[in-house]
Amino acid sequence: MSRLTLALDVMGGDIGPRITIPASLKALEYDPMLSLLLFGDSQQITPFLSNIPKALAERLTICHTSHQIENNQGLTYALRHSKGTSMRLAIEAVQKGMAQGCVSAGNTAALMGLSKVILQPLKGIQRPALLALLPTIEGKYSVMLDLGANIDCDAENLYQFALMGSIFAENQLNLVYPRIALLNIGEEEIKGHQAIRFAAEMLEKDTALNYVGFIEGNYLLNGKVDVIVSDGFTGNIALKTLEGAAKNVIALLKGKSRHHLLKPLLSWLMSKLFSESYQRLKSINPDQYNGASLIGLTSVVVKSHGGANEQAFSNAIKDAALQVRQQIPQKILAGLEKY
Amino acid sequence: MSRLTLALDVMGGDIGPRITIPASLKALEYDPMLSLLLFGDSQQITPFLSNIPKALAERLTICHTSHQIENNQGLTYALRHSKGTSMRLAIEAVQKGMAQGCVSAGNTAALMGLSKVILQPLKGIQRPALLALLPTIEGKYSVMLDLGANIDCDAENLYQFALMGSIFAENQLNLVYPRIALLNIGEEEIKGHQAIRFAAEMLEKDTALNYVGFIEGNYLLNGKVDVIVSDGFTGNIALKTLEGAAKNVIALLKGKSRHHLLKPLLSWLMSKLFSESYQRLKSINPDQYNGASLIGLTSVVVKSHGGANEQAFSNAIKDAALQVRQQIPQKILAGLEKY
Repeated sequence: MSRLTLALDVMGGDIGPRITIPASLKALEYDPMLSLLLFGDSQQITPFLSNIPKALAERLTICHTSHQIENNQGLTYALRHSKGTSMRLAIEAVQKGMAQGCVSAGNTAALMGLSKVILQPLKGIQRPALLALLPTIEGKYSVMLDLGANIDCDAENLYQFALMGSIFAENQLNLVYPRIALLNIGEEEIKGHQAIRFAAEMLEKDTALNYVGFIEGNYLLNGKVDVIVSDGFTGNIALKTLEGAAKNVIALLKGKSRHHLLKPLLSWLMSKLFSESYQRLKSINPDQYNGASLIGLTSVVVKSHGGANEQAFSNAIKDAALQVRQQIPQKILAGLEKY
Repeated sequence: MSRLTLALDVMGGDIGPRITIPASLKALEYDPMLSLLLFGDSQQITPFLSNIPKALAERLTICHTSHQIENNQGLTYALRHSKGTSMRLAIEAVQKGMAQGCVSAGNTAALMGLSKVILQPLKGIQRPALLALLPTIEGKYSVMLDLGANIDCDAENLYQFALMGSIFAENQLNLVYPRIALLNIGEEEIKGHQAIRFAAEMLEKDTALNYVGFIEGNYLLNGKVDVIVSDGFTGNIALKTLEGAAKNVIALLKGKSRHHLLKPLLSWLMSKLFSESYQRLKSINPDQYNGASLIGLTSVVVKSHGGANEQAFSNAIKDAALQVRQQIPQKILAGLEKY
């Protein structure tokens, strides 16, 4: 593993430093070659750093700022007032070469907007997208994008998402010729918005991409395809719907019961019978895999869930480190030139 | 219960008569006041009617036609060639007063298109919508619409969906002042398409409706609101995503295991500890509750899942019968005039 530095916006997310700082320490413990720049309010950060081992302390730097972008700010306002905010400083640190990647749990629209302005999209990419790995029922992963960065998309945008997703899947999931599908309300050619139907035509013509057709919402977890493509509005709704369903099912299984004495027996039995299945079910839970990537940019930017817990935010940091080491942006650029 | 007749398009759906006819018999058994007109190919229908009790046989009538609308036909083509098809004849039977409601598992776009032309939308309704009851994690139901009838919707359409959904929830779920939310990618005012934001403004101004804000995909099952409103594309993706997640989880729990001898113990334990929860989980499965309603029309039209099994199609028939008896269209009309 190579030495690397990530810039974190520790003020982002629903909770802020109370989650992001312990998560940062966890990531540093896990990865001895990792250094972190923590952008945020030092008064809120330092209480979580008392009594930490020297080996961790020397790999983190607090970069104080009292400004931050709020979750409910409109994009225009957020960008106009972004100077000196934790999110913007973190992105600028990447642009200046102080860090090789950036993580934030803050305002998605602002993160995308600032990243596009400061880090720039890769040459040839019209719209960077938000991408995540979706666990499948067979214990593998599919790549899904866009998950909320681009509300309205035309056919060309969707085509580029497919291309980026395919390159991401090739590298991150070690796949050859990943199967690509467009998320739609039916499998027949005539279904859906015009943009989707045009994108399907473009993808069918491109023999370099393994386009297999439309996929409906009920097959998202089945591992039928490796790359699931949609506009950001639909993708966001679908992902959150999946997450909600998984969380609710787990809550049901852990549900209240008057038969407390029988619970240990059930736990033992579940682990005997379904240990692997149960782990897979839990992996649909966003707390377990959190971390979406803004792809199509010149550098790695990872957007964590606003409601990420400690484990989830630390996974987002690990994910950013992995992408930097795997040189995902460079590979996307090379892939773009190849097509 | 009052005597009533429903017209069925028995050729619709992925399977056709092999599912729809046994389902029809099941519905007739359940409801002794129900009569059915079966529109479809008598050669395919009759094999399933040999040796049925006289009490059932006298309450069903085969209305032969060899024509049907295919699932993959475009709307324009389907409508132009709809004359004499099982779907169209079933809808016309309602229009002529031979039946009080209609059920089909066929092409959704064609069903909506023909229903609008033949049965007409209720006075004042711009676009009828596809509505379903969504089970919540607490064992109750929410109303969700539109689920696929209207791909593109403006603010006025969404507003009318909210209004229709509210009236449906009042009657079908026995609620006073049902809580209405718009499905969106965030809870903040600034999120989502312009149409959603404008619809939110319209709903906020209407004090007759209990609009409570935006709802994200992860809260669809939580029973936080009674009426979930979206355009047909998003609603369809969200519903199918939920269904897929529920099916996959049930498949996981039933998953293969080498410990066959322990399975009866697990079943017993699940029923002891979580009987109610487990039933709720299963109720998210579309086979258990199937049946969406086209609302905003002058008569009851129920669209069954294309992939409905016998139980699901028979539930769709029961649902249509209930709506006729509850006089849902008339109540929506009265509600529209009241607002």
